[in-house]
Amino acid sequence: MIPRAIDVDVHHQIVDWGAVAPFVPPGLRWRVSRASGPPLARHGFQKVGATFGSAPIPPASNRNPKAHPAGDPSWVKEHYLDPRGVDVAILTGSLLSLGVQPGADLAAALARGVNDWTLETWVRPFDCYRGSILVAQQGPAQAVAEIDRLGDDPGMVQVLLGSAGEAPLGRRAYHPIYEACVRHDLPVALHLGGEGAGISAPATPVGHPSTYFEWYGALPQGYMAHVTSMVTEGVFERFPALKVVLYEGGIFWLPHVMWRFDKNWKAQRSETPWVKELPSAYILRHFYSTTYPLEAAPDPTYLHQVLAMVNAERTLLFASNYPNWELGDPFDMVRDVPEELRRRVMGENALAVYGKRLTKG
Amino acid sequence: MIPRAIDVDVHHQIVDWGAVAPFVPPGLRWRVSRASGPPLARHGFQKVGATFGSAPIPPASNRNPKAHPAGDPSWVKEHYLDPRGVDVAILTGSLLSLGVQPGADLAAALARGVNDWTLETWVRPFDCYRGSILVAQQGPAQAVAEIDRLGDDPGMVQVLLGSAGEAPLGRRAYHPIYEACVRHDLPVALHLGGEGAGISAPATPVGHPSTYFEWYGALPQGYMAHVTSMVTEGVFERFPALKVVLYEGGIFWLPHVMWRFDKNWKAQRSETPWVKELPSAYILRHFYSTTYPLEAAPDPTYLHQVLAMVNAERTLLFASNYPNWELGDPFDMVRDVPEELRRRVMGENALAVYGKRLTKG
Repeated sequence: MIPRAIDVDVHHQIVDWGAVAPFVPPGLRWRVSRASGPPLARHGFQKVGATFGSAPIPPASNRNPKAHPAGDPSWVKEHYLDPRGVDVAILTGSLLSLGVQPGADLAAALARGVNDWTLETWVRPFDCYRGSILVAQQGPAQAVAEIDRLGDDPGMVQVLLGSAGEAPLGRRAYHPIYEACVRHDLPVALHLGGEGAGISAPATPVGHPSTYFEWYGALPQGYMAHVTSMVTEGVFERFPALKVVLYEGGIFWLPHVMWRFDKNWKAQRSETPWVKELPSAYILRHFYSTTYPLEAAPDPTYLHQVLAMVNAERTLLFASNYPNWELGDPFDMVRDVPEELRRRVMGENALAVYGKRLTKG
Repeated sequence: MIPRAIDVDVHHQIVDWGAVAPFVPPGLRWRVSRASGPPLARHGFQKVGATFGSAPIPPASNRNPKAHPAGDPSWVKEHYLDPRGVDVAILTGSLLSLGVQPGADLAAALARGVNDWTLETWVRPFDCYRGSILVAQQGPAQAVAEIDRLGDDPGMVQVLLGSAGEAPLGRRAYHPIYEACVRHDLPVALHLGGEGAGISAPATPVGHPSTYFEWYGALPQGYMAHVTSMVTEGVFERFPALKVVLYEGGIFWLPHVMWRFDKNWKAQRSETPWVKELPSAYILRHFYSTTYPLEAAPDPTYLHQVLAMVNAERTLLFASNYPNWELGDPFDMVRDVPEELRRRVMGENALAVYGKRLTKG
């Protein structure tokens, strides 16, 4: 079966932490079951504007006073996936800042609990959902153990890290995580969200932004730093099979990073003799990007030019970011992707990245 | 007189701090006159490779054991400007991290001393040099006083800040600096260099890089944050005449910042009602970039496409980065700039930005 469309980014939501509580150790249940969820470091940047845009929203009721468009797997299938022709959706959840929590043990325990909750309540009962193995990078050994625990489960298709953290992801401390990803043939995915919170550095190299608008605009800078770090530290020489998916960061910055980096490599590579190829070669071979949100170029020609620069026919994956559609409808957003790329972006590229775990159904 | 070429970035070097000492207050002379210069916070990233590339280097001698290609204004004129057809050079110096020094008073005093030294030993004796008013942004009141002290000197053509600092440059604390720039009809220029040192945040949003290679590659992220911050905080609504020159950051990231920011503006601008136009409109109108180093696109067509996206016919300024030519010869670097843009990039754009102070001679 070739799916009609594959959506690599559905943010299934924990609307009731009480449902997750059975999946965490007894000692942690009280903290997880608080009405507002477990105690987590958060930044002060709060979304403004219409949170869900045109995403379908279930009616609120007495039993479900905080109706959420991504709280119920049946409802999401019926109201989003089926009507839009999405056959497979990869779940990315709503806990994207575990990597900046001061308590590495708490973060790891939450990750395990949420992973089991995702598997038991979303992935196993439905053919259309696949899970991400959420891990917290500040405890690499626990992250590796979690990847080994779930890495061969056919319902899990990638390892998911928050992009925010204490250190660039090329650092040697994180290499065991990549080794585990490769051992289980899983891509590693990075997602924005915790930048500036908890043990994270400020969200920009020159300090904290003042508004959500500024904060959200700046987030791809973290990806730029991770891409540069992973190439520089030799991650892809050590793990040539590793694939990295960058969520929600756009694509127009990649030519800058690739070719500034190439320029510098010629003069500066004596520091990093293990970086044997042009940095852009590693980047184009190992990194993948998603469509939500694509930069709003004023002329579709600019989009077409950049799609060519980043080899989008191989590296770009359709992502709806469901239900966070405040920036527009995800299908509108790919409207200007040329027809000859459309099938690849809407599904074939994802099949090439994630392999047959996507089509088990 | 229309200059043949204008070079907006010559890093004249303090080879002997003893020459600067007379320009600082008596109490500071001892500290400034140390063989290694004044005590300054530095990061640990040291350039690797051939520092000066093909730049001319004077012979060392007993009197001048550390011969430096940018230490002597006559020598630079004779060996670089004249043979290359550069009629006017804007001096940017070698003290690019004053904004991250913990001591704001020391930083301001050094800025004043270096500015006077630049004026007396480089600018006034020669027709070909113009100076930058160096200021340290962590002491905005002293920065304003310095701009007012020297802002009407015909030898000074811009205000220069290190891009590294404690906070994004849109913050209200820095607005008096921009007000002073506009009062004296001076562009403000940002230059990379102090990222990660002293009171700066780490050089990336995810922490400190491991090598000079990685550090130098990541530096434009600070510019991205400043551009976003200055637009978001309404700097250009308050100071519609302000121009900002970004040194040494490349240009391929601008489409990303402009159009991610435009995309978000539509959903998120309720936070910043004073941002009345698309962010890209402010960016294209107020920011200028320099040519050293342009990203090394593997195909000149890509460069041509991005030059069009960023309105290079108005916004791109030739900069040699003399004598730091480790990334190649600055004239080679603009080889692929199309013929119809060349005159503008090599001089006309600089004349439009800096005005008649450039052609006083």
